[in-house]
Amino acid sequence: MKSISSRQNSWFKRVRDAIRDHEDEIVVEGPKPVADALALGWKPVMLIQRAGDDAIGEPSFQFTSEIFDSLAETRSPQNVIGLFARPTGDLGAILMDPRLVVALDGVQDPGNVGTIVRLAAAFNCAGVVLLPGSADAFAPKAIRASAGAVLNVPIAKTTARVLIESGRTMYAADARGSDAALKKNSILVFGNEGAGVSDEIRRAAKPVAIRMSERVESLNVAAAAAILLSRNYGQGGRKAAG
Amino acid sequence: MKSISSRQNSWFKRVRDAIRDHEDEIVVEGPKPVADALALGWKPVMLIQRAGDDAIGEPSFQFTSEIFDSLAETRSPQNVIGLFARPTGDLGAILMDPRLVVALDGVQDPGNVGTIVRLAAAFNCAGVVLLPGSADAFAPKAIRASAGAVLNVPIAKTTARVLIESGRTMYAADARGSDAALKKNSILVFGNEGAGVSDEIRRAAKPVAIRMSERVESLNVAAAAAILLSRNYGQGGRKAAG
Repeated sequence: MKSISSRQNSWFKRVRDAIRDHEDEIVVEGPKPVADALALGWKPVMLIQRAGDDAIGEPSFQFTSEIFDSLAETRSPQNVIGLFARPTGDLGAILMDPRLVVALDGVQDPGNVGTIVRLAAAFNCAGVVLLPGSADAFAPKAIRASAGAVLNVPIAKTTARVLIESGRTMYAADARGSDAALKKNSILVFGNEGAGVSDEIRRAAKPVAIRMSERVESLNVAAAAAILLSRNYGQGGRKAAG
Repeated sequence: MKSISSRQNSWFKRVRDAIRDHEDEIVVEGPKPVADALALGWKPVMLIQRAGDDAIGEPSFQFTSEIFDSLAETRSPQNVIGLFARPTGDLGAILMDPRLVVALDGVQDPGNVGTIVRLAAAFNCAGVVLLPGSADAFAPKAIRASAGAVLNVPIAKTTARVLIESGRTMYAADARGSDAALKKNSILVFGNEGAGVSDEIRRAAKPVAIRMSERVESLNVAAAAAILLSRNYGQGGRKAAG
């Protein structure tokens, strides 16, 4: 195990860049999420232990507490970090899967994106596709909000046009819709926290709504996802789950 | 309108203290929430405008942008702040209301508390009662997460014993429960993000669960509240709404 104490070290910089950019490599923080990733067969690029803390797996690096904690920024420091290659969800496989596909169209808050990934796992969806303008599901805040669900939900990026041309029935969460059941083999799109889905999606999708009182104007997008994905699971998604 | 530029000013300190403590006075930030509060007849102790920005209502004070923004800490600065007396929800009235009562037992994150207050409004609940260990619904983060719903949901603090002695049927969100419909005149308790409800509540309450796949171990408490409150509303709460 190699011990690192300098912020100028190239391995340290690589972890710091993955936290910021999460393009080719992503960072999983904390004992449970890292242990879960290893149990699922993920191969770490680096497994980093905070000096003085308990190890998970077989760490390849030890960072001094000072530089380890400097990675944590405003977050509560964890005692282990795993650096992994960014998983690439297979968009074709997601769109061939008969289970509901969740699409995020400009969902900007990584906490909302991660929460919806967790819900997609809870209610056994095929995967989550990110349209332009959505926060990345592999941003550290999204990974944390997913409570590890990013590890077992296929996630891919694509465009509205590709979804429309897939031929699957498309629904969009929209206060003006009906609350009818979703068809099999469909896509459910959640839009931006303020503006909803894009015009391109709105024209192609059937609006689905959540009945509620007039005491509020809208729901948080993650709350809407919880309700619609749970409802769909109760209405037959369970059967598809085998 | 009085103009204030010093952090030593007693009015400035009073606002700063209300943001931190929200015991006797609370702070509502931003044009829409403040306008909503005024429209609902709330009488502000102070209405504060950021110098150079548009006013809402008839501000009694103008803070220089420098001291105004210093109140915002990590939050995006808003251009108006209202200081109000903390509303005191009438616990007796909440417990006499036939609609579902939501109780929070150690829900620690103010964002979750605020989101659940918003859901209680959306699904027309009687009110929200806070048990010891829960974050305050009038913390600035909770007010923001409620999207203004704290303005029209009765909120009161109490203890588990008082709820138990109220004689209303009590349910607790719990992964080991059934997903049967809730009885009228009941209380639904949501517990701590990690540990769930306290032993005292667990002994007194019937567990209610959300059916989900085995791909996750649990749901976020606000997601669980979204699903259970929406389901209850669909199963008859609507009628109670008139």
